Amino acid sequence: MITDKLDLLYEGKAKRIYKTNEPNILLVSYKDSATAFNGVKKEEITGKGRLNNEISTLIFEKLTANNIENHFVKRLSETEQLVKKVTIIPLEVVVRNVVAGSLSKRLGIEEGTEIKETLVEFYYKDDALGDPLITEDHIALLNLATKEQGETLKTLAKQVNEVLKAHFLSCDVRLIDFKLEFGVTEEGNIILADEVSPDTCRLWDIKTNEKFDKDVFRRGIGSLTDAYEEILTRLGGQS
Amino acid sequence: MITDKLDLLYEGKAKRIYKTNEPNILLVSYKDSATAFNGVKKEEITGKGRLNNEISTLIFEKLTANNIENHFVKRLSETEQLVKKVTIIPLEVVVRNVVAGSLSKRLGIEEGTEIKETLVEFYYKDDALGDPLITEDHIALLNLATKEQGETLKTLAKQVNEVLKAHFLSCDVRLIDFKLEFGVTEEGNIILADEVSPDTCRLWDIKTNEKFDKDVFRRGIGSLTDAYEEILTRLGGQS
Ligand SMILES: Nc1ncnc2c1ncn2[C@@H]1O[C@H](COP(=O)(O)OP(=O)(O)OP(=O)(O)O)[C@@H](O)[C@H]1O
Ligand SMILES: Nc1ncnc2c1ncn2[C@@H]1O[C@H](COP(=O)(O)OP(=O)(O)OP(=O)(O)O)[C@@H](O)[C@H]1O
Ligand SMILES: [Mg+2]
Ligand SMILES: [Mg+2]
Repeated sequence: MITDKLDLLYEGKAKRIYKTNEPNILLVSYKDSATAFNGVKKEEITGKGRLNNEISTLIFEKLTANNIENHFVKRLSETEQLVKKVTIIPLEVVVRNVVAGSLSKRLGIEEGTEIKETLVEFYYKDDALGDPLITEDHIALLNLATKEQGETLKTLAKQVNEVLKAHFLSCDVRLIDFKLEFGVTEEGNIILADEVSPDTCRLWDIKTNEKFDKDVFRRGIGSLTDAYEEILTRLGGQS
Repeated sequence: MITDKLDLLYEGKAKRIYKTNEPNILLVSYKDSATAFNGVKKEEITGKGRLNNEISTLIFEKLTANNIENHFVKRLSETEQLVKKVTIIPLEVVVRNVVAGSLSKRLGIEEGTEIKETLVEFYYKDDALGDPLITEDHIALLNLATKEQGETLKTLAKQVNEVLKAHFLSCDVRLIDFKLEFGVTEEGNIILADEVSPDTCRLWDIKTNEKFDKDVFRRGIGSLTDAYEEILTRLGGQS
């Protein structure tokens, strides 16, 4: 099976999505751009695309090994991977183990506070609205998902959390929080899609709490590629 | 029983709360000030205190007649009422029948859109944080209420909605949305507290959609007292 890179379907802030000669398979090409604050802060960072493609690959493989269905098919090149085409549910599903970022600001709780019962939040994927936090009732009002699908998303998100929390811990990394996107396959199943990388996770060193994720870029506190390289190395990838 | 107005306990943006000689009874004095946008817009409006005291009185009496427990004890004067002292649960419980205000902005849905299944939202009562929308899981994380109490708040809020929606309709007024505060009595019961007035409800004329609530002030589209007088009159009060 040779898969051809055909038309560009969508260019996002972090990835380009191409059609392939197989109707249910897309090609994802990870870009070298970093953005934050809904695109307000922006920079080209050589090597970022490769790092996120490699890290995402390792994580999707780990999830597959733990029976968590996801869109990953195979790594194609340093910056490219093939994925199953899905219809993305326009929700950012955020899982939190430790208070950080917007949650800290929203609730006035200090960053670093442990969360006893894993928190799952839904944000409406809509750049024009600024990806607002929404409730399960808002999801129903907007017809984004049924109540049952909402429950499925929560359950799947927590399963992903259990696998990744343990895996990162074994690499001396604390999984603070992360954002997932899910999609519906042609067969009607909900599976994990998009990416799982230091762009979409907060990852802190288990001992020093040093940040190895996009907050390094957001907050201008170090080299993004050094941080992402560190994660790739700890996950056992080739840096 | 003579109830004395003793020490000022709390001065808020819209009301002053006084102790009385009875430890479980407070005196609420409605002020002539209007504020919006978390206190940024502010004005003294003669007569507003009386109007809200009268309207709140009529509404609490209506709720009592419909077996919805609330803090109202009795009207004392044009601007004052006695209420049961409660420990306020720091949540603004918002009920919506029609999309308006912040929900319209958050979800990008046009103001005036009917909501099929009554929507209940929780906002964290914290001026410094700007009263953010929160989920039921955030409520648990912040220890603001138990899951069971959260359910009770939702149920009570919907009961209030059914009574008030029908009552306003009989006065040719559409109840668009409203904000409630609940508190816990000494006996441990959750009851409705604070106020129910055009400051805390959106009320539109059934035919013309003319606004008879604080949006008149927020948006600078007419006389606040004219609007509130209209509500008082339609509710059968003396204007
Ligand atoms: N398996 C998939 N099938 C279809 N679309 C996918 C799949 N996986 C991810 N996507 C979508 O492809 C796009 C990836 O591009 P990128 O992450 O750069 O977008 P973005 O700038 O974050 O914008 P968006 O707000 O759309 O996510 C996203 O819209 C994502 O939802
Ligand atoms: N029965 C009650 N027992 C105790 N406190 C009450 C009761 N009813 C209302 N309150 C509280 O009294 C205050 C009323 O004042 P006001 O509405 O002016 O406050 P505010 O400016 O809106 O500020 P806040 O953010 O505290 O509500 C509120 O804090 C309200 O929660
Ligand atoms: Mg994206
Ligand atoms: Mg108030």
